[in-house]
Amino acid sequence: MQRARAAAFGCLSAAVLIAVSTGCATARDVRAVARSSEPALASWREGASRDAIVDFVARTTDPASPDFVPEAERIAVFDNDGTLWAEQPMYVQLAFIVDRVKALRAQHPEWESTEPFASLLRGDAKAVAAQGEHALAALVAATHGGMTDEEFRTVVREWLATARHPKTGLRYDAMVYQPMLEVLAHLRANGYRTFIVSGGGVDFVRAFAGEVYGIPTDQVVGSTARYRYESNDGVPRVVKTGEIDFVDDKEGKPVGIASRIGMRPRIAFGNSDGDFAMLEWTTAGGGARLGVLVHHTDGVREWAYDRASHIGKLARGLDEAPARGWVVVDMARDWTAIYAASSAR
Amino acid sequence: MQRARAAAFGCLSAAVLIAVSTGCATARDVRAVARSSEPALASWREGASRDAIVDFVARTTDPASPDFVPEAERIAVFDNDGTLWAEQPMYVQLAFIVDRVKALRAQHPEWESTEPFASLLRGDAKAVAAQGEHALAALVAATHGGMTDEEFRTVVREWLATARHPKTGLRYDAMVYQPMLEVLAHLRANGYRTFIVSGGGVDFVRAFAGEVYGIPTDQVVGSTARYRYESNDGVPRVVKTGEIDFVDDKEGKPVGIASRIGMRPRIAFGNSDGDFAMLEWTTAGGGARLGVLVHHTDGVREWAYDRASHIGKLARGLDEAPARGWVVVDMARDWTAIYAASSAR
Repeated sequence: MQRARAAAFGCLSAAVLIAVSTGCATARDVRAVARSSEPALASWREGASRDAIVDFVARTTDPASPDFVPEAERIAVFDNDGTLWAEQPMYVQLAFIVDRVKALRAQHPEWESTEPFASLLRGDAKAVAAQGEHALAALVAATHGGMTDEEFRTVVREWLATARHPKTGLRYDAMVYQPMLEVLAHLRANGYRTFIVSGGGVDFVRAFAGEVYGIPTDQVVGSTARYRYESNDGVPRVVKTGEIDFVDDKEGKPVGIASRIGMRPRIAFGNSDGDFAMLEWTTAGGGARLGVLVHHTDGVREWAYDRASHIGKLARGLDEAPARGWVVVDMARDWTAIYAASSAR
Repeated sequence: MQRARAAAFGCLSAAVLIAVSTGCATARDVRAVARSSEPALASWREGASRDAIVDFVARTTDPASPDFVPEAERIAVFDNDGTLWAEQPMYVQLAFIVDRVKALRAQHPEWESTEPFASLLRGDAKAVAAQGEHALAALVAATHGGMTDEEFRTVVREWLATARHPKTGLRYDAMVYQPMLEVLAHLRANGYRTFIVSGGGVDFVRAFAGEVYGIPTDQVVGSTARYRYESNDGVPRVVKTGEIDFVDDKEGKPVGIASRIGMRPRIAFGNSDGDFAMLEWTTAGGGARLGVLVHHTDGVREWAYDRASHIGKLARGLDEAPARGWVVVDMARDWTAIYAASSAR
């Protein structure tokens, strides 16, 4: 775990550079609407990717098929950043951290002269990133700790209601992928239970997963802080300490699935090499298995990135997908719509 | 957590004394059948306990009631040992550990002269218990570690198929409480999702929770070992290390719920002071909440124990239940049947 944790922090540190140097412009008030369209996968163009998904669902739910999967084993897991919603130019949770430090600035005059807060507040992203893992942990603790999960999620929801993506001007939770909402709906309509398995913080994702994806809190697996139970004043509370306990990324993803879900999935969707282990473990199981990588190929409607990207780097996955039988979705070619927000109005 | 962990080990150490000194007689081949009876709660006598449960479900599922709970928030949590199945004279998982050490004896000649195995194999429970937490951790690692969760659960299921309770001669998974199976079924029929929140090992409980309780693996929260992802030989595996990572007992129960389920339950059933924090946190939430303690009062059909018991000690819960509005189920008075096995044939 230590190696996975360090690697995750490495990625986050690189992203902090971008996050700190990018402001969050406010713009149009666009709300995400998590539509499920009929017929199934309406925003998917006909082709190999769509066929592979539809065919897999048909085969595994037909009792007469040799690939039939009993309903109790119909588990599908989805990465979040870059798979269900946009992750460029920074993870959304990092934009939240930056904004949150600014919002709490008045309550913490000591931050003006304490690292890494002072550098972040000066907009000196390079200085923040140079402080490494320790600095990011301090930022997480300061913005995620000292409150209950319910209180934290309220903060996240209030932030999502006002923050806007610097490029699109959309709410971040409007930048969920309409074709992926259709996959979630199609799977659930066929007896699959859908789980998010995210490198992001579990309570951050739980704040919107119900409304945006129709996924209940207990079907969100993510990185977790330690929690502490308090009942000193007669009011029992479970408080987030902000101290990172488990990083649900890379090799941590199959570990998180084994620990929290307790069953190897039949289907795994990801978009980066952070999802490689999850897809590898999922598709190595017996019986019918489906691994899908969402390849960000659409530089016009979204972003085009893979091997050279700090965020959502996809190299090994592209190299090994053909031999492993994984579906590689070409966003530009396979999706007629990108964001749920625009397709919904 | 450290305190909770130590306390949990303390309880386990006491139980080891009993487990090691008690053989597991084989007897009748009785299988547990997880029946759901109609009408609701058929094995519950009319009275305050039954009324409280039925009334709570009715109020919280009636859209016209001020106590109505939206379906997404209908979360009910259940302790396992002593609440859903019998826990005397030892936790079932401890009986498993003892039997498993004996079964693996031939493969581990070094155990004959290595503690705590040597003492356990000699039947010297006192010597095992005297070695404390460290000894129990070694026993857990040796019997639970070094295999995948799927492999471990197969071992547990094979053990459950042959092991018999020393007093009743029943399979352990036949000693689940018929009235509690009816509660689970009644709640699920009314849109509640049912979770187990057990101090026992999560993979131990997951081995039978589906078949016996109708509860899927992802709705079992329990104590967990660390897992390690391996993919060295081209065959990816998530391996249980056997090293204890999280103890889901006492203050750990609300922590486990917050971390894994991510929502404060509406209903909590327990039977010991190990469930106190779970009931306290559950019933301190806003809106309608139900806390229930199963009080083991039936020394004829089951066991009668509470304040003085090493296993399933119930003292603070009894003292504070009236003021907190918790229902205290009197097994002797409230239940017409005890075990699912006997009532099913």
